[in-house]
Amino acid sequence: MSRPVAILLGSDSDWPYFEKGLALLKEMGVPALLEVSSAHRSPQRTVKLVRKFEQQGAVAIIAAAGGAAHLPGVVAAHTLLPVLGVPIPSPLQGFDSLLSMVQMPGGIPVAVFGIGEAGATNSLLFALSLLAENDSRLRERLAQFRRRQQQEVAAKSDRLKAAREKK
Amino acid sequence: MSRPVAILLGSDSDWPYFEKGLALLKEMGVPALLEVSSAHRSPQRTVKLVRKFEQQGAVAIIAAAGGAAHLPGVVAAHTLLPVLGVPIPSPLQGFDSLLSMVQMPGGIPVAVFGIGEAGATNSLLFALSLLAENDSRLRERLAQFRRRQQQEVAAKSDRLKAAREKK
Amino acid sequence: MSRPVAILLGSDSDWPYFEKGLALLKEMGVPALLEVSSAHRSPQRTVKLVRKFEQQGAVAIIAAAGGAAHLPGVVAAHTLLPVLGVPIPSPLQGFDSLLSMVQMPGGIPVAVFGIGEAGATNSLLFALSLLAENDSRLRERLAQFRRRQQQEVAAKSDRLKAAREKK
Amino acid sequence: MSRPVAILLGSDSDWPYFEKGLALLKEMGVPALLEVSSAHRSPQRTVKLVRKFEQQGAVAIIAAAGGAAHLPGVVAAHTLLPVLGVPIPSPLQGFDSLLSMVQMPGGIPVAVFGIGEAGATNSLLFALSLLAENDSRLRERLAQFRRRQQQEVAAKSDRLKAAREKK
Amino acid sequence: MSRPVAILLGSDSDWPYFEKGLALLKEMGVPALLEVSSAHRSPQRTVKLVRKFEQQGAVAIIAAAGGAAHLPGVVAAHTLLPVLGVPIPSPLQGFDSLLSMVQMPGGIPVAVFGIGEAGATNSLLFALSLLAENDSRLRERLAQFRRRQQQEVAAKSDRLKAAREKK
Amino acid sequence: MSRPVAILLGSDSDWPYFEKGLALLKEMGVPALLEVSSAHRSPQRTVKLVRKFEQQGAVAIIAAAGGAAHLPGVVAAHTLLPVLGVPIPSPLQGFDSLLSMVQMPGGIPVAVFGIGEAGATNSLLFALSLLAENDSRLRERLAQFRRRQQQEVAAKSDRLKAAREKK
Amino acid sequence: MSRPVAILLGSDSDWPYFEKGLALLKEMGVPALLEVSSAHRSPQRTVKLVRKFEQQGAVAIIAAAGGAAHLPGVVAAHTLLPVLGVPIPSPLQGFDSLLSMVQMPGGIPVAVFGIGEAGATNSLLFALSLLAENDSRLRERLAQFRRRQQQEVAAKSDRLKAAREKK
Amino acid sequence: MSRPVAILLGSDSDWPYFEKGLALLKEMGVPALLEVSSAHRSPQRTVKLVRKFEQQGAVAIIAAAGGAAHLPGVVAAHTLLPVLGVPIPSPLQGFDSLLSMVQMPGGIPVAVFGIGEAGATNSLLFALSLLAENDSRLRERLAQFRRRQQQEVAAKSDRLKAAREKK
Repeated sequence: MSRPVAILLGSDSDWPYFEKGLALLKEMGVPALLEVSSAHRSPQRTVKLVRKFEQQGAVAIIAAAGGAAHLPGVVAAHTLLPVLGVPIPSPLQGFDSLLSMVQMPGGIPVAVFGIGEAGATNSLLFALSLLAENDSRLRERLAQFRRRQQQEVAAKSDRLKAAREKK
Repeated sequence: MSRPVAILLGSDSDWPYFEKGLALLKEMGVPALLEVSSAHRSPQRTVKLVRKFEQQGAVAIIAAAGGAAHLPGVVAAHTLLPVLGVPIPSPLQGFDSLLSMVQMPGGIPVAVFGIGEAGATNSLLFALSLLAENDSRLRERLAQFRRRQQQEVAAKSDRLKAAREKK
Repeated sequence: MSRPVAILLGSDSDWPYFEKGLALLKEMGVPALLEVSSAHRSPQRTVKLVRKFEQQGAVAIIAAAGGAAHLPGVVAAHTLLPVLGVPIPSPLQGFDSLLSMVQMPGGIPVAVFGIGEAGATNSLLFALSLLAENDSRLRERLAQFRRRQQQEVAAKSDRLKAAREKK
Repeated sequence: MSRPVAILLGSDSDWPYFEKGLALLKEMGVPALLEVSSAHRSPQRTVKLVRKFEQQGAVAIIAAAGGAAHLPGVVAAHTLLPVLGVPIPSPLQGFDSLLSMVQMPGGIPVAVFGIGEAGATNSLLFALSLLAENDSRLRERLAQFRRRQQQEVAAKSDRLKAAREKK
Repeated sequence: MSRPVAILLGSDSDWPYFEKGLALLKEMGVPALLEVSSAHRSPQRTVKLVRKFEQQGAVAIIAAAGGAAHLPGVVAAHTLLPVLGVPIPSPLQGFDSLLSMVQMPGGIPVAVFGIGEAGATNSLLFALSLLAENDSRLRERLAQFRRRQQQEVAAKSDRLKAAREKK
Repeated sequence: MSRPVAILLGSDSDWPYFEKGLALLKEMGVPALLEVSSAHRSPQRTVKLVRKFEQQGAVAIIAAAGGAAHLPGVVAAHTLLPVLGVPIPSPLQGFDSLLSMVQMPGGIPVAVFGIGEAGATNSLLFALSLLAENDSRLRERLAQFRRRQQQEVAAKSDRLKAAREKK
Repeated sequence: MSRPVAILLGSDSDWPYFEKGLALLKEMGVPALLEVSSAHRSPQRTVKLVRKFEQQGAVAIIAAAGGAAHLPGVVAAHTLLPVLGVPIPSPLQGFDSLLSMVQMPGGIPVAVFGIGEAGATNSLLFALSLLAENDSRLRERLAQFRRRQQQEVAAKSDRLKAAREKK
Repeated sequence: MSRPVAILLGSDSDWPYFEKGLALLKEMGVPALLEVSSAHRSPQRTVKLVRKFEQQGAVAIIAAAGGAAHLPGVVAAHTLLPVLGVPIPSPLQGFDSLLSMVQMPGGIPVAVFGIGEAGATNSLLFALSLLAENDSRLRERLAQFRRRQQQEVAAKSDRLKAAREKK
């Protein structure tokens, strides 16, 4: 079975952004490790979970947070595993979340994805691409997913043109 | 002797922003504890320094950092002492530093000051105001400092008017 | 009994942001002094309230305002007490409120917290941490509050995982 | 003789932005009242100067400041005279200065001009337009100034075309 | 009777922002000249209205617009009357409206007020302050308005405190 | 001979941004009509130049301006010719210039290009593409220009790799 | 019959922004070619559609997209036809969409219009102005459209004044 | 020997940002594949290089670009390999570069790092962490690098304190 992808949410309210992507993960047969922990409210728990994720063989740790979004940086400070950051929308529209994740100092890398659901889904797809490097079946599934996406674009185009002609 | 003010710099290059304020601290007879540590590059050292500052009786911990400026948040997550954040100018002009400090989640407070030297000086003056609550001599010195500032404004006004009249 | 925390609102509509934090203050047995005054519409009243807060022994003055949010700066110009600023969301999302508070000139410090409810709560927790310096029972209550926060994070994590497994 | 225009600078370093405009004022035969005062460092002085400007018959008070630029708002809170704000460039490029001036609450108006020299010059031209309402000679001079500006544009256009043809 | 205040709206949908301020104008006995015209869609009409406002003796021309908000600049280019700009909220929250009004080149002044209703009200109050320079009864009414504002602040404070005690 | 491209600069200091692109225009054998005029300082001249450009058969009018950059909008309000806007860098880095050009109301189109030299060059290339629709020789030259650009990219890549190997 | 205008949407959800403008296109007797394709999800399809649009004689290609809005840039990289970009509102309010379209490197021009419906309508009007260069009847229709717009402004002004008088 | 890391620069002027990180790569014994190609100026070359990098066994493709920075998105649209984006500073300080990279649509992931040198170095460290998953010697070297970083922080702290004492 595949190595799991670890997902650490700064708050349980961040969860809905990941639902779509986790359905995809499941479809690809890759297990997820899901936990909630805060960089600020539960710092020791955060570090313990990083160790636990390492022991469970996680291929990467996704950390999602909003506002002064330190979670991915704190995780990255404690592991050599790839850390993926997902900025969660906030009263400043995720602008603060994005900037507090992406402007990491040289030496401790965090890979950042888009704000909200698109970023959450892409962080999971990126983790899948890491697994796919050693797993040709998964690579083929990802290639299929890409082809399906292309077909959906064409189908949407056709539906839109049909709808317009009816009018 | 007064309790000291702790200053934690994310990088030794942040130092010049504090020189003016530290001269003031010295003039007021208040000792400073100065250390460099990074929230990301040296996380354990950071937590150890927080403990050391607590044991040395620091009245507050000032943490300065730039970019994804997590240092004050990480310090605040590990202490009940007042934590003061100073955003250091960055390629995005300190905008990223400011937002990654100030938008802390409810529950873990960080008090943030302005970007760069004005903020550094004000964080030290704020720490002095905390000490002044139990120290009437220091309170009087701070009041004098305020009066001196007022006089300097009037003096600058006079010099500017004199310079214009000469022309 | 503990010294009180003064809260000065620029408008009565700023009140809801503080409700959660004031419940906490009450729980910790610390009294609040609450007033409404505008830096611009009622400048004399504002200065009078600062004097009154000083006489009532306030440990710090929290000032909340939106837009061109001058209230904390005006308060700080008239007192040596610690002044804590809380930016209130505005049509520009609190961006204007934040910048007009935080970029104070060197010499007159204002400690700024996050925009809206999280900042309001944190300003109160910060004021509690000032009181806790001379009050070991309060310090213990704050430590308990932090532990409770940690436990809540773990509990939320468990609930989320349980909810996912049910599906 | 004409009523004077009052100019209140938050700092003597704001002076150079006004030199060009003050030459224009002189050319138009309108006297200027120039003072330096800080909203935060010398609040009483600021209010006293407002009273003095009123007694000297100022037609308007121009207030220039940078960062958390409260000066025009504080002036406006203490007078019924027209108050004109000029945001001075800052480490955040005058963005903070602009927002802390322009987003005044309903009830206390401040008229804001552009950041830096263009805004300083325009605040003075605007004050001249107020005087011109009761002074037809000044109105004619302003009309001449506008015509001269138009001619300069055409002259610059000609010079540029001539320079290009030479190449 | 008093000279009128001219209000030029870029769109009829900008109207609601001015309702509150126009009630005030009426209460003060000052007539308003209201028109809709677009800097871009009806440029000749805009210039004609400027001439008409001049002939009707307007003390100032308020121009409100959103997005690429050129209306006040276009008006200012065609008159020596004081021009007051009011940025209307837009999909970019009035940010674009504000910047396209306030950053006028040196030589053609536009006085800018806050985004939306507060700015609309303040532009009208500012126009009243221009009229008040030659009208002591109006000046007294404006002073009363200011006092009333102060009393309302105190009354709101009392109501809020009473409401809290009931709980 | 080809129809000319009209270039209207808000200020003669905007000229250097266009030098590179005008060299290209010359190389392609397309004449340029160059004028300086300000939307605000010389509004009548601006409208007259628009008429003149129309009579000279201009294929499009490029208008460049900084700050509250109204020039392209004013031009577009007076012509049915394609209007291309080029935001010039300003103290706010061209941000204000960009927003005051691009957020035009529905009904009066302005086509906006990037801030500064890249945008100036692209506005000229875009005008060339309009001419190329009726001029197959020009279309071929533009295609050659594109191929040359591609080759330059490859050449730069080779030079960089060679330089690295030498080290 | 007129050459068609090609419209390429990054997503079928971008469609409603164009409805108003397409009604106008129809009214003017100009056909539209509408397709959906994503720069990222269906890159080959995108390039194929560009070729198809060229073969169908499109006068210009409008490309609309949100977020990291690469579609117009990708289209422009593959054609010499005029490419018009329309930024679609996004969680960051179209700010990201605008910047990722407008800051193209020198050499590959994209003409950008406002965010959302106004920009969509204007891109279509701009395409009509390109066709009008060789079609005097269309030019007359566009001139009529402009006159109608002017009349609507005056009518709205009258309605607003009438409504106010009734009150 | 280790699989190589591919680096694709949008321009040869982006090179200096990577020098520091490439020295590190060399020290770790990992080869780099370096090429220059533009998403817009040389789109076919870009796709060809992606294929070449895949055939050369690259573990990841780093793409660096400024302004409307489409390069990483274009690369990601054509490969299943992990794509890492590095925003290069621009006239808008890299803000445009960052937003045009990070806001990718769900389905095509790009992992984004900080603006400029810190981001360039971190993208290379992140690529090393991918290789380290299958290479325990490299993992140990990365762990050593982290320890060295920690020691450097402590050393800088000591030097700063020593320098201050001398004064």
